[in-house]
Amino acid sequence: MKKPKILITNDDGIFSPGIYALWEAMQEIGETDVIAPYTEQSSVSHAITLSDPLRVKGIKRSGGFKGLAISGTPADCVKIAIRSLMDKKPDVLISGINRGANLGNNIIYSGTVSAATEGTILGIPSIAISLNSFHQDKFCGAKEVAIKVVLHIMNNTLPIGTLLNVNVPYCLPEKIKGIRVTRQGHQYFQDEFEQRKDPHGRNYYWMKGKIVDDDQKFYYDSKAVRDGYVSITPIHFHMTDESYFTKLEEIFSSE
Amino acid sequence: MKKPKILITNDDGIFSPGIYALWEAMQEIGETDVIAPYTEQSSVSHAITLSDPLRVKGIKRSGGFKGLAISGTPADCVKIAIRSLMDKKPDVLISGINRGANLGNNIIYSGTVSAATEGTILGIPSIAISLNSFHQDKFCGAKEVAIKVVLHIMNNTLPIGTLLNVNVPYCLPEKIKGIRVTRQGHQYFQDEFEQRKDPHGRNYYWMKGKIVDDDQKFYYDSKAVRDGYVSITPIHFHMTDESYFTKLEEIFSSE
Repeated sequence: MKKPKILITNDDGIFSPGIYALWEAMQEIGETDVIAPYTEQSSVSHAITLSDPLRVKGIKRSGGFKGLAISGTPADCVKIAIRSLMDKKPDVLISGINRGANLGNNIIYSGTVSAATEGTILGIPSIAISLNSFHQDKFCGAKEVAIKVVLHIMNNTLPIGTLLNVNVPYCLPEKIKGIRVTRQGHQYFQDEFEQRKDPHGRNYYWMKGKIVDDDQKFYYDSKAVRDGYVSITPIHFHMTDESYFTKLEEIFSSE
Repeated sequence: MKKPKILITNDDGIFSPGIYALWEAMQEIGETDVIAPYTEQSSVSHAITLSDPLRVKGIKRSGGFKGLAISGTPADCVKIAIRSLMDKKPDVLISGINRGANLGNNIIYSGTVSAATEGTILGIPSIAISLNSFHQDKFCGAKEVAIKVVLHIMNNTLPIGTLLNVNVPYCLPEKIKGIRVTRQGHQYFQDEFEQRKDPHGRNYYWMKGKIVDDDQKFYYDSKAVRDGYVSITPIHFHMTDESYFTKLEEIFSSE
């Protein structure tokens, strides 16, 4: 098999440990292009930059890591990579390895997932991969999973419009219990705001909160990760609520 | 019927003509709280602000318009409004009236729709409303539509987790042909990047492009608006691709 051309991006920025680990893993199976945000872009969701221009800067890290840093969001990186910077379309896109899981409702806010969504929109089979930890010391389990999932995509492709959201438990590779194909669950961030006063006596507010995770069914993403499995969720962006469609038609046609 | 408490927000910012028109319309049917971004936040999608604090500033405009401007994104505005600034939860949230339609794939990038999504996540029946024009002179048709849809929600409520994405054609109210309940279509922005040099000789890139809209079926959002109808799409955020779920299980269980 010809080595696949792999576009690597993320939302933690091109200097993060997670993208370095992902680059190391992808080196083993393909030709890599790293095109990622210059600075951390966590929780920017699918934002794109229309009112400012983008800058592109070559970056080198140890061990031969080379990439292009973009002064924008993850979705910007994918757009400019595919439309302008790469000489040919990648065979696969992988975004991560994210610091912290992307599960349940929280995938709506995720820049990591949005990079993969943008790849999907542009016709590239795409994967988001996240590690269920804010520690950034051990990526070995996630690296093995990334290789396995990319090889699966190369052998099986993906439906048009569908991406894979992969979450890996934080443990030694040999402790991972296996892979579960899952559904997006209901994990959410219960936010609250902490009011403070600045040195000039004016109020400001910090968003803070905690993750709430009540999903008990084995087929939900967060439950699988909690149980020690890799969670792989097929995600699409057909957002029409078909179950309410007919009722809504009745309501508005009754006039 | 008791007057509903209506939270008004947008992504064009608190000084935009569209939010003023929406405020005028909602005054007729309810008690309004305007809590919206201080500056334009178009195409920020569902971004939230975790690494910086938020500021809140009282704003007055002509005709008795009062509101709170937030130094954040549309999703931030909805979170801080409901979690911290409002004395009780609103009965309904309406986001807009946006400058430009939000149709097809493009709703993924929309701050207007994301504000309504955030309302839905927080349990508030929510509406996004957009005008299919970048002219901001005539909102009269959209104002009437906003009133009608809010009254419908007050009388019929909405399923938990579902919001309404409303798009209004740009024409005189009497020229609107009616309402169509629609599905999210495939309209997208075909982006490209224009490379320029700054006065110091360094490259920068502008994202530009054009909207591509090939949907011909009457039940798609953009087709309805093109035909002169108000488009109302019920949207949810269950993004699991059920049609691929079983196949993916087979692939990963075959090892």
